[in-house]
Amino acid sequence: MTRIAQQFAFLTEALKLSEILRQTLLPTSRRRENDAEHSWHLCLMVLVLAEHANAPVDPLRVLRMLLIHDLVEIDAGDTYAYDTARMADQHEREARAADRIFGLLPADQGRELRAAWDEFEARETDEAKFAAAMDRLQPVLLNILTDGEKWREHGVTLPKVIARNQHAADGARPVWEHALALLDAAVERGVLQP
Amino acid sequence: MTRIAQQFAFLTEALKLSEILRQTLLPTSRRRENDAEHSWHLCLMVLVLAEHANAPVDPLRVLRMLLIHDLVEIDAGDTYAYDTARMADQHEREARAADRIFGLLPADQGRELRAAWDEFEARETDEAKFAAAMDRLQPVLLNILTDGEKWREHGVTLPKVIARNQHAADGARPVWEHALALLDAAVERGVLQP
Repeated sequence: MTRIAQQFAFLTEALKLSEILRQTLLPTSRRRENDAEHSWHLCLMVLVLAEHANAPVDPLRVLRMLLIHDLVEIDAGDTYAYDTARMADQHEREARAADRIFGLLPADQGRELRAAWDEFEARETDEAKFAAAMDRLQPVLLNILTDGEKWREHGVTLPKVIARNQHAADGARPVWEHALALLDAAVERGVLQP
Repeated sequence: MTRIAQQFAFLTEALKLSEILRQTLLPTSRRRENDAEHSWHLCLMVLVLAEHANAPVDPLRVLRMLLIHDLVEIDAGDTYAYDTARMADQHEREARAADRIFGLLPADQGRELRAAWDEFEARETDEAKFAAAMDRLQPVLLNILTDGEKWREHGVTLPKVIARNQHAADGARPVWEHALALLDAAVERGVLQP
């Protein structure tokens, strides 16, 4: 297979990301968001919110991680943020998926994107912390915009939202603080249990 | 409104991009693709195909353009690539939309993203030409992967596909040539009229 053909094979496989449904709902249609549109929205957040990163970040490195971070869910499926049982073997399932999916690319590019995925998962670099913050804050925003419908369905309370997402403060403290204010307002509106 | 609140207002409005349906179908579910997932897939193409740009490009500048290039369709709607009647006033409708949507941001960021959109529309810089090439090639790929269902519906023939999309060669000639080979194969398979 030529190099371009390998690249097209990867890009074709990646289209399945649009078929992976998440638990969060979109504000207008109230349908479930999929991983592809979620990934796009995270990248847009980076363009607009990068100035709030705790440490200066290389936006291209953050975008690269966010563009590919959910591709493993094509094989491993979406694991709901509050499903602690399925989260136990999540990394193992996803690492197998990463081997297969990034393995479709020419070897040098496969290694490069696999390294970006590993960096995102390890959450140690400033870029990975900021990327993870966007990934945690986006569904919080969607839940607020859809009046907590999915929080109610899953019995999620304010302390649970905070416990699960507060590491966003490690990447972008001012944005996490803004989210906390929105969460308090959501409790006051009665769409999130205190 | 605080700066972060303005940024969140923009990011909330942007979620409507997921509600804008395109003419192209996704390979697995055969449902219509929306603008948000389309934008994500274009960005993934940039990560993988940037090496084929006719001139070296700054990937971050290309990604910035592609992440925001379709936001104007929240107001102006999607204009089908082969609908020459609606294409006549397309730019005017979209420029009004750009004023409103980028105007939600803090002024400095609104100017920055509006400039990126203007750059994409003008298609003069190497980055804009490469971004436009991805935007033209992606629906061609989707049409091939879905056996030309939408081409047939709209009576699109090989010469029309070439006439409408050949400016992709100005941004990424090797990728356009690969697409031409795929188009020839599609004609041979009988999914595209010669």
